[in-house]
Amino acid sequence: MFYALMARNAQPHVVIAGAGFGGLAAARALAKAPVRITLVDRTNHHLFQPLLYQVAMAGLSPADIAAPIRAILRRQKNLTVLLSEATGIDLTRRTVLLSEGSILYDYLVLATGGRTSYFGHDAWEKYAPGLKDLDDAVEIRRRVLLAFEAAEKESEPERRRQLLTFVVVGGGPTGVELAGAIAELARYVLASDFRHIDPRQTRIILVEAGPRILPMFPEDLAAKAVRQLERLGVSVRTRAKVTAIDESGLHLAPERIAARTVLWAAGVQPTGLTRRLGAPLDPAGRVIIEPDLTLPGHPEAYAIGDMAVFLHQGGKPLPGVAPVAIQMGSHAARNIFRTLDGAPRVPFRYVDRGSMATIGRSAAIAQIGRLRLDGFVAWLAWLVVHLFSLIGFRNRVAVLLNWAWSYATYQRGARLITGRRLSLVPHRPVPPEEEAGAPRGEFLVR
Amino acid sequence: MFYALMARNAQPHVVIAGAGFGGLAAARALAKAPVRITLVDRTNHHLFQPLLYQVAMAGLSPADIAAPIRAILRRQKNLTVLLSEATGIDLTRRTVLLSEGSILYDYLVLATGGRTSYFGHDAWEKYAPGLKDLDDAVEIRRRVLLAFEAAEKESEPERRRQLLTFVVVGGGPTGVELAGAIAELARYVLASDFRHIDPRQTRIILVEAGPRILPMFPEDLAAKAVRQLERLGVSVRTRAKVTAIDESGLHLAPERIAARTVLWAAGVQPTGLTRRLGAPLDPAGRVIIEPDLTLPGHPEAYAIGDMAVFLHQGGKPLPGVAPVAIQMGSHAARNIFRTLDGAPRVPFRYVDRGSMATIGRSAAIAQIGRLRLDGFVAWLAWLVVHLFSLIGFRNRVAVLLNWAWSYATYQRGARLITGRRLSLVPHRPVPPEEEAGAPRGEFLVR
Repeated sequence: MFYALMARNAQPHVVIAGAGFGGLAAARALAKAPVRITLVDRTNHHLFQPLLYQVAMAGLSPADIAAPIRAILRRQKNLTVLLSEATGIDLTRRTVLLSEGSILYDYLVLATGGRTSYFGHDAWEKYAPGLKDLDDAVEIRRRVLLAFEAAEKESEPERRRQLLTFVVVGGGPTGVELAGAIAELARYVLASDFRHIDPRQTRIILVEAGPRILPMFPEDLAAKAVRQLERLGVSVRTRAKVTAIDESGLHLAPERIAARTVLWAAGVQPTGLTRRLGAPLDPAGRVIIEPDLTLPGHPEAYAIGDMAVFLHQGGKPLPGVAPVAIQMGSHAARNIFRTLDGAPRVPFRYVDRGSMATIGRSAAIAQIGRLRLDGFVAWLAWLVVHLFSLIGFRNRVAVLLNWAWSYATYQRGARLITGRRLSLVPHRPVPPEEEAGAPRGEFLVR
Repeated sequence: MFYALMARNAQPHVVIAGAGFGGLAAARALAKAPVRITLVDRTNHHLFQPLLYQVAMAGLSPADIAAPIRAILRRQKNLTVLLSEATGIDLTRRTVLLSEGSILYDYLVLATGGRTSYFGHDAWEKYAPGLKDLDDAVEIRRRVLLAFEAAEKESEPERRRQLLTFVVVGGGPTGVELAGAIAELARYVLASDFRHIDPRQTRIILVEAGPRILPMFPEDLAAKAVRQLERLGVSVRTRAKVTAIDESGLHLAPERIAARTVLWAAGVQPTGLTRRLGAPLDPAGRVIIEPDLTLPGHPEAYAIGDMAVFLHQGGKPLPGVAPVAIQMGSHAARNIFRTLDGAPRVPFRYVDRGSMATIGRSAAIAQIGRLRLDGFVAWLAWLVVHLFSLIGFRNRVAVLLNWAWSYATYQRGARLITGRRLSLVPHRPVPPEEEAGAPRGEFLVR
């Protein structure tokens, strides 16, 4: 018996599902715990999601904001990384079902995060991609850059206008950042690169169903964000509900906007795992957790981050941002530590250090405690915070250099159209007879 | 008549198909010519192919070795960039057929390069991808990294061995570079990142059908390359002809090698355009060009680079390398200049400045004139030459920093598994009953 307790395999087994901000924080906080940890993720990298929009807008490369999970945790000897997807949890048998095999646990930390939600309109995904992982970002980059290329070849004014119209749905931080970044791309980066179109004529529309954008910010700061967006050429439409999206544009009842490129930043829902848990869910599908972050009736199983909803601190759900997930991850680890020591679990308290959103070059808003910043100062604060939050020295240097270079040259370092997916921008073939007629774009006539 | 000659559209129209080394050199050399230029490419970027294998091996990001064609040529006002694919040429009507529409020319420079050749075995492509563009590189990176991940999860020794066996077919510079880079990845980068496998046990086999690798180099230098490869753990098999490739390995008559990952670096063939030209081709399908680089009977149409074969200087075909394409591009531009001035076209002469191949960290071979280098000095020469040949200040800085970081830390900056293509590494599901039995890899038992 003594021998069995001392054997390595007798150490309690902690399984962490998901290596996002929450899962990684939990794993690191358990580095010195007398446990074996298995960290399961379906990708091989931890992703710094707050900068994902910059990959979508060709400013950064995927590798600048992602780091291999194995490399991050190489020296943590009590931890095994497993590239696999958690497809279900058997809470009574304490088993995680994986895409291959299954795995038993003593303690479980669920941190599988969220995915794009179309509020029941899954058919819209094809026309309005969301932004949750690197593949999404590269696909959005491809679509945005291809739209300018197609416009350059299009001589019919209506079609050209449609190709140069970009709609971003959702007025949260991601939507604001995407809209601002498209505006910068069109106004500065691409401005002198085309011969038949003027990218500065690009129309960018930010659509929000609610009464105002950035509802998590004070009203005066959000109003400043609107002004900064409008200065960049983004038109902001609030109280505008999308009723249909197809390949040629979208319906904002009663209006129709002809746009070839629609991006979706309107909603996040938990990964499908939550619905198979048998635990109580809120209407958005998130797991309702106890004050100590465990699942009701399962003190050995924790759920954190975007897949969970924490309703105890003041009753308002915590926002789906990185600091919440990180603090929850550390707290779950702390409660596991306490349980191993025979101490009771303690309730979680979120320490809000503020929030920020960037709009574009020298434009941002920030709320840090009672301090409210906007414009250049807020933008600088945003840069510093994000640079220091990045994981890995290499990534920090790479991002800093890319930003400095972009700022100085008005260029973007990753303006690549890659990926062999079928183009969503069909080109009208020009019959040879037409060539002899009126000039249809200079390149088609001698 | 005078007016027509002075009008902008009356300037001769030069169409360049392909923005690789040859096409870009031709475009730049015509910057001050009294012509209008249309540069057609099916991608939006110029690719620095000599470093493509480093993207495939997770050392560099796609954006480090590619630059947007529009950005490179932004200031060249006599030039229009067109994102399109040249699907055919009507030499008598002086028309380039594009994937959309067509385009008339006065002078034509064909520089569409090459693609991977499987010598009639196109079915092998699925199992043994080639390396010609960024999508290829990202796909190879995905497969190589996934093979290690799958091996970590595999407890059956034979399957694990198969997953950790990598075969590179083709002993030219690309094959040597790929084999050396896989060896480095396994020996240094991944060495301490796994818990169930030791990546240093990886088998890497370089297969060459001819009597020796690197036939374009002197025999003693090639022999040194073999020794450097073997020191890294690559086994080199010459006179080994591949007779079959499938998902589980390849046949090297009479032997069979069980390998999950096979990479193809054995051959290049011109793009399909050449076969639709109606011009004389060599057995490899390349256009046989005149001493002045024009197509026989078409003094206004040039073919350069990998799609053409130049047999006049000593009778031996020129190698398919960047310096040949660049010199040909400048020469075609020079002959167009001369024709506009009423001067006769002059024959092309290739100035050979040497060749280099890199094997790995501090290991390379180089021949520069009569100078023969190997080991660290050759490797340093290789670094300097490639760094300075890169287009764009940003790319040079990015690559230099990535190299310095990799050299110092033995890490790779772009170790990402991305892309949603179907995995070629199927996993055997483990039935729950098996779990209770003998340990099948620690993570499957508590």
